Amino acid sequence: MTNHTHDVRRRSWVASANGHPDFPVQNLPFGVFSPHGEMPRGGVAIGDSILDLPAALEVGLFGGVVQDVAAAAAEPQLNRLLNFDAGGREALRDRLFEILSDEATASVRALEPRLLHRAADCTLHVPAQIGDYTDFYAGIHHANNVGRLLRPDTPLSPNYKYVPIAYHGRASSIQPSGTPVHRPEGQRKPGSETVPSFGPSRSLDYEIELGIWIGPGNKLGEPIPIAAAHAHAAGFCLLNDWSARDLQGWEYQPLGPLLSKNFLTTISPWIVTAEALRPFRVPQKPRPEGDPAPLHHLWCEFDQTHGALAIELEVLLTTRVTRARGMDPHVLSVSSTRHLYWTFAQMIAHHTSNGCNLRPGDLFGSGTISAPGIEGWGSLLEITEGGRNPIHLASGETRRFLEDGDEIIFRARAVRDGFASLGFGECRGTVVSTP
Amino acid sequence: MTNHTHDVRRRSWVASANGHPDFPVQNLPFGVFSPHGEMPRGGVAIGDSILDLPAALEVGLFGGVVQDVAAAAAEPQLNRLLNFDAGGREALRDRLFEILSDEATASVRALEPRLLHRAADCTLHVPAQIGDYTDFYAGIHHANNVGRLLRPDTPLSPNYKYVPIAYHGRASSIQPSGTPVHRPEGQRKPGSETVPSFGPSRSLDYEIELGIWIGPGNKLGEPIPIAAAHAHAAGFCLLNDWSARDLQGWEYQPLGPLLSKNFLTTISPWIVTAEALRPFRVPQKPRPEGDPAPLHHLWCEFDQTHGALAIELEVLLTTRVTRARGMDPHVLSVSSTRHLYWTFAQMIAHHTSNGCNLRPGDLFGSGTISAPGIEGWGSLLEITEGGRNPIHLASGETRRFLEDGDEIIFRARAVRDGFASLGFGECRGTVVSTP
Repeated sequence: MTNHTHDVRRRSWVASANGHPDFPVQNLPFGVFSPHGEMPRGGVAIGDSILDLPAALEVGLFGGVVQDVAAAAAEPQLNRLLNFDAGGREALRDRLFEILSDEATASVRALEPRLLHRAADCTLHVPAQIGDYTDFYAGIHHANNVGRLLRPDTPLSPNYKYVPIAYHGRASSIQPSGTPVHRPEGQRKPGSETVPSFGPSRSLDYEIELGIWIGPGNKLGEPIPIAAAHAHAAGFCLLNDWSARDLQGWEYQPLGPLLSKNFLTTISPWIVTAEALRPFRVPQKPRPEGDPAPLHHLWCEFDQTHGALAIELEVLLTTRVTRARGMDPHVLSVSSTRHLYWTFAQMIAHHTSNGCNLRPGDLFGSGTISAPGIEGWGSLLEITEGGRNPIHLASGETRRFLEDGDEIIFRARAVRDGFASLGFGECRGTVVSTP
Repeated sequence: MTNHTHDVRRRSWVASANGHPDFPVQNLPFGVFSPHGEMPRGGVAIGDSILDLPAALEVGLFGGVVQDVAAAAAEPQLNRLLNFDAGGREALRDRLFEILSDEATASVRALEPRLLHRAADCTLHVPAQIGDYTDFYAGIHHANNVGRLLRPDTPLSPNYKYVPIAYHGRASSIQPSGTPVHRPEGQRKPGSETVPSFGPSRSLDYEIELGIWIGPGNKLGEPIPIAAAHAHAAGFCLLNDWSARDLQGWEYQPLGPLLSKNFLTTISPWIVTAEALRPFRVPQKPRPEGDPAPLHHLWCEFDQTHGALAIELEVLLTTRVTRARGMDPHVLSVSSTRHLYWTFAQMIAHHTSNGCNLRPGDLFGSGTISAPGIEGWGSLLEITEGGRNPIHLASGETRRFLEDGDEIIFRARAVRDGFASLGFGECRGTVVSTP
């Protein structure tokens, strides 16, 4: 399953890549960037730099069958790259590893000024045109926590352990890390009021999720069987499903959340490929005693033994005060993608089981990934129990929900003994007041 | 508000347009079609024919400022056309009226073989790339009927008269009239069973809705005020929100419908423009005594007096038996868009009130448009009370929900005394068994 591109001993001639928390030479994620305000183009993150793929093509670094895959990866939207199968992506990965690892020839290294940009000088974009965005609810501890606030007697709906619950989200408002989070206005009706009023949300929240980039799609009417589903997940990112809890509470019956979510979804802009994450596949967590087995169309041996991912997640908060005082960010939670109740293959098999067609560049959100204990809960709604128990920061401030000026930062790292850990780059956003 | 292009006395030199139920010269809807298996291109429906816009451009029928709008309307996806404001669309409409009405010069008429295709020889396509699709729930009689089945005591959720309820639907599976309706498989759990099973839906249904094509969009974070909202609705179509009621009943809590809807949505492929429908704007139906007034951000004088549309709707059913015997279609219901509780401007203002960005080519569904009485109910779920009271067809057959081989046909007509009525073309689909 793994090959030389996963070898922890291998290094890059790009010095900043060696020991880089996110982008060592074993990662090689794809993205779309603009250097110095120039036109968007495809690139690969390597340490603190970005490999300019159009430039690499121009100097002839890609030949043979890899050339077309590299050309797709060089485009300003990566949908065509995502439409290649794992073989195509893998061939490109192998060649990129040759170019960027210590096996690169001196003549390749000499091209550095032409090939590499300082990431700090570049603007990152959403890397593909997202046809449809579906947000799942596969974090069972989150579902339990939220359900307990709304329905203390039956926190989990009866379908939860059978159906990978999800809803369609908004594609147009998915934005890259760093996009300001305008506090949305909307209708709110607290229990203390008899009629709703319109105004800025008073309970703005984040949700930490993993995003999955769909690779090759399926035709309408042709479900993807679970045994084939892994091949349709091309890569992953971090995703912040910003949520206005007061708008949500008032609007969500009977058809689910809309305006409480669709004002903004922030993603980390690099597509960390399924190939890079291959060493971090782990068995699915056994279901607790008494839980039903997945129905037939959601079960296959490979998915049970390799369907989960070992990715550690961290949510950080800074405020105007903590930044002014130079304080460390407040750690809101530490969790892991292993806590998801459903695998990505199960999500894909479920989503297409009725014949619904996926397209390359579609995006899934995993749902909020909470760990069992409060130190791993993935939203303020859970941590503060709906705002009832504020958290206390080292700055002396308290928070029930997000205040203007607060910045939420997600970080993630795929970890396994004997392998270089891989990161995703940051997924951050700062709350600004309603315009 | 109306001009010579709405004059009922005006005729077309395309003979089939005069008295045509859908496409007289006063309509001039835009679409994308392939003549005889050739490449898709933009066109205009006129009687039983389609005007080939690339051909019309080639022979120089458009000059000056209209030329660029016509070029956008000639493309194989009409997103760029939809991005023009009403002025641009109106200028093109005026020129098309000159070309296709009785005021056309002899030299224009002489071009007929080059300009016109028989619609019967053409394939119609979805006319734009749909960025996001949002399905509203603005048919209050439908919401009441459905709510009564699920929650007899409180059929309407408390937010209904304040919030134009909606959910995000699936863009990828929106298909043009005529696309087969594969009976979807999925999880069903009737009350009589203790655990769900996976298999073909046993309660496949239709829902009649009006679709709204979004024209110019808005930037993220910049709401569209209701007074400006009408200008963002470029055109309309018919929309069948096919629904698998058994899948829906099991999956929809807590985040709304997903697989019960996203296997297929059928639309009539012509964009009937806001300009063509101008004579059919009518005052919004007064809210019943005791209903709250719309909140400030959903109210403006113009929308109250001109926000609704006078469009009559008809739902027809044919079966294998009725077709084999040459019987007339069974009329399932007759309704009107005047029964919608919320206007399209209110939907647009609501959708963007939190800063959510719309893009040209986004599509809204109105929600199922049921009339107050059973003869106007817009789905079998309502007509058969959840399948309890089957309907009886003249063929001797009964129906609780749709059977394989059943065809559902929607027709619509904008009607006003003193004006030519305009239609939408058909929106039809035949149920076929699970592949």
